Amino acid sequence: MGAFPKLTAEEAAEFIPNDALVACSGFTAAGCPKVIPLALAKRAERLHDDGKPFQIKLLTGASTNDAVDGALGRARAIAFRAPYQADRDLRKFINDGDVVYIDDHLSRYGRRLRQNFFGNIDIAIIEVSHYMDDGELTLTTAVGSAPVFCRNAKYILLEHNTYHEKIAGFHDLYNVEPNNAPVPLRALSDHIGTKTLRVDLKKILGVVETNLPDGIEAFKPCTLVHEAIAGHVVDFLLREIRRGIFPSTSLTMELGTGNLTNAVLKHIGACEEMPKFSVHGEVLQDGILELTERERIEFAVGSSLTVTEPWLQKIYEHADFYKERLLLRPSEITNHPEVIQRLNLVALNAALEADIFGNINSTHVTGTSVMNGIGGASDFAHNAALSIFMLPSTAKDGKISSMVPLCSHIDLTEHDVDVIVTEQGLADLRGKSPEQRALCVIENCAHPDYKPFLRAYLQRSLSGHIRHDLNTAFAFYDAYAKTGDMRNAQL
Amino acid sequence: MGAFPKLTAEEAAEFIPNDALVACSGFTAAGCPKVIPLALAKRAERLHDDGKPFQIKLLTGASTNDAVDGALGRARAIAFRAPYQADRDLRKFINDGDVVYIDDHLSRYGRRLRQNFFGNIDIAIIEVSHYMDDGELTLTTAVGSAPVFCRNAKYILLEHNTYHEKIAGFHDLYNVEPNNAPVPLRALSDHIGTKTLRVDLKKILGVVETNLPDGIEAFKPCTLVHEAIAGHVVDFLLREIRRGIFPSTSLTMELGTGNLTNAVLKHIGACEEMPKFSVHGEVLQDGILELTERERIEFAVGSSLTVTEPWLQKIYEHADFYKERLLLRPSEITNHPEVIQRLNLVALNAALEADIFGNINSTHVTGTSVMNGIGGASDFAHNAALSIFMLPSTAKDGKISSMVPLCSHIDLTEHDVDVIVTEQGLADLRGKSPEQRALCVIENCAHPDYKPFLRAYLQRSLSGHIRHDLNTAFAFYDAYAKTGDMRNAQL
Repeated sequence: MGAFPKLTAEEAAEFIPNDALVACSGFTAAGCPKVIPLALAKRAERLHDDGKPFQIKLLTGASTNDAVDGALGRARAIAFRAPYQADRDLRKFINDGDVVYIDDHLSRYGRRLRQNFFGNIDIAIIEVSHYMDDGELTLTTAVGSAPVFCRNAKYILLEHNTYHEKIAGFHDLYNVEPNNAPVPLRALSDHIGTKTLRVDLKKILGVVETNLPDGIEAFKPCTLVHEAIAGHVVDFLLREIRRGIFPSTSLTMELGTGNLTNAVLKHIGACEEMPKFSVHGEVLQDGILELTERERIEFAVGSSLTVTEPWLQKIYEHADFYKERLLLRPSEITNHPEVIQRLNLVALNAALEADIFGNINSTHVTGTSVMNGIGGASDFAHNAALSIFMLPSTAKDGKISSMVPLCSHIDLTEHDVDVIVTEQGLADLRGKSPEQRALCVIENCAHPDYKPFLRAYLQRSLSGHIRHDLNTAFAFYDAYAKTGDMRNAQL
Repeated sequence: MGAFPKLTAEEAAEFIPNDALVACSGFTAAGCPKVIPLALAKRAERLHDDGKPFQIKLLTGASTNDAVDGALGRARAIAFRAPYQADRDLRKFINDGDVVYIDDHLSRYGRRLRQNFFGNIDIAIIEVSHYMDDGELTLTTAVGSAPVFCRNAKYILLEHNTYHEKIAGFHDLYNVEPNNAPVPLRALSDHIGTKTLRVDLKKILGVVETNLPDGIEAFKPCTLVHEAIAGHVVDFLLREIRRGIFPSTSLTMELGTGNLTNAVLKHIGACEEMPKFSVHGEVLQDGILELTERERIEFAVGSSLTVTEPWLQKIYEHADFYKERLLLRPSEITNHPEVIQRLNLVALNAALEADIFGNINSTHVTGTSVMNGIGGASDFAHNAALSIFMLPSTAKDGKISSMVPLCSHIDLTEHDVDVIVTEQGLADLRGKSPEQRALCVIENCAHPDYKPFLRAYLQRSLSGHIRHDLNTAFAFYDAYAKTGDMRNAQL
């Protein structure tokens, strides 16, 4: 480990010119570079203070840490962003129209990158746990799109983070080049790729040494609403297994990420009747590790290990145990339609709002303000054997109904949504006509405060295969805009 | 060919009880049964005249012929219908709420059938060109879902159509059972399945003899609008090939079906610069055969051979030539996300309307009245390397704009739509933010009569990542409902 120039973060940041297309490793806060982006943000602020322009176009695996989207965003150093973000500050700049943001299916993004669709990547900033003089790199707690960034970038800056030395061996890096070959994965635990990346030596500009954790925060305790949703989900899964729709011996699930996922994992953990299962998804979070430790989860694959420090330490201490049970893969593989179809999986995802006919809005509040992005929601929902969407029936102390006549923005169409679950209950929409779906969503999922309006909407809507009255389809949003409470909506 | 009882169509129809789940072979009018459904419709009418109930639940491959959806629909003999239809009469009954209709992604439908999701199929009515005493069947001009119908049905009625004797050898029937195996297809022309089906002898109730063509009608001559759209598409494809996004030697395209597809094929045929290519899609129509005859199309795969009589006779006369160039596969393979991704294809589909942000409505007029169904549009658009949607910029003599602020129904989201083309021009939406997409669609695709409104809508809409004003988002529909002309829309 001596062939590449040792750099400070500030020296590394100097390599990045204004208007550069920069790609950062990581997927969620896991595996992101931690010091070069901060130094770059400071450099941008200095340049801006001097009246000089400095903005980059930024590609990542998915969401990032506060050093990447947070600091660079606040420094107004990001002009263009793809394919996904979840940062509070950056979100505001995007919604204000100050940052061009392309949110894309993660499965499509991989192909876009391989086509050099966003242009040539000038510099990739890659966090590694190990590097060799011949250009062999070991990633840290995430894979995301780092392999394709390394292949396509003109130059590479490394952050060598010794904190994650024990992550070596957890990666399975299969390269999906368009060579018309099937992805050779049959069982989730098949190793189909390499443990390390090999990059062209000449690309590496230098190495910045760090020793820093990812800083993943624990989830808040489950609320009663989350608990109720999770209870409905687990009851439903058990019913489906009992009636033979899913085998009791080889169930594979995609679990999304966040508080709702946490609640589902907790409920599964407490339910002895639930068979052992495997996880194939984007993010491996604490709850998945807990069930893996208890051998309730047999194998778990993700594109990132987004866990709190106690869990990460446990994995590193018992690496032999976890290496037989966990793998990190490129998001192009975790989100690959081919792989998702083959695994015959149950996809569980959160949503912002649902309409009574089964469409899902998972990105844009009132159709206009983006929260995060589509990410892998459609990759999983479209290709899963069963797609389930979870959300509380109301928000803002009941002033917002998450069940609406017509979603203000549609990310997943009625055709991609099998089941909708709120704390009120579960609507199984499979094999139902639009009218049957609407009745099922209203009666099972809507909050009682909103049922009368929704029933009346359906009743008075003109005839047609889908019964809509476009003049009042958005009445909830109108009432909220005017009175701050959707319960004031009038037909 | 003597082991099974010979039946008249009327005798065969007697086997089908009220409320039966019936599955018919075919995909489009090609390969559908022709006489048993007619006899069944007559039987239903007689029973209805006697005050007795008679309705079936009907599954097919996709759309059908007039004997299946037409006659059975008009006889009010269909209570439930999946997964796709395109019949004028049946459509009316669906929109009146008299028939429960589930339109589903054709790729998902295959899995639903294998799960027996719609219940056990009581009787499958299958058109065959040959049958053997041991239960070996050769299909006719379509595959669709016939193989899974035969596997899952309790009983089978055969229509032995000697008109299509020469179709033997054109089928490639791969069985996608959930065995976690990759679909072993690498090149389009790989034979991965069998040429015939083998069914359980005991299921076959009998055989009705026929000798009938499919009766496919020729397309109307291309209009100037279709010609203009096709011209934009071909120019764009040539640009993409020139800049290396698609290789000039192995281009594969899905071409949809209908008049617009016909126009595109005609333009490709007239453009010597366009390289040879292959076709992978649902329907092989006349224009594809013309270019295959000219060896401009190297290989063509579909789930049906939906061609006029002169072309069918030509194929049968020169079967050796066409067997090297055509294959019919189950729709589960033509529409399989895995296969579509692997072929790296360009998907060309028609749409009903598009919104300025890139969402597509391909099924429901004004959000309520279904035209046909989603079919394979999303299977192809979501998984293609490039997805293009084509539509005239206006309908009803200019009184309807196909470019709207927000689609009244969304089948394909902004994430699945790369390019929108009207006779006005082409909007390449890849890598563009919502605002950039909106400007691109308005300036390139909207009809001049509607540009001022759409520009003003975008300008006055509130800020946000997607600039919508939900109060006026549906103003076009409102103006049309009130005045019969969207040009009267007010902001």
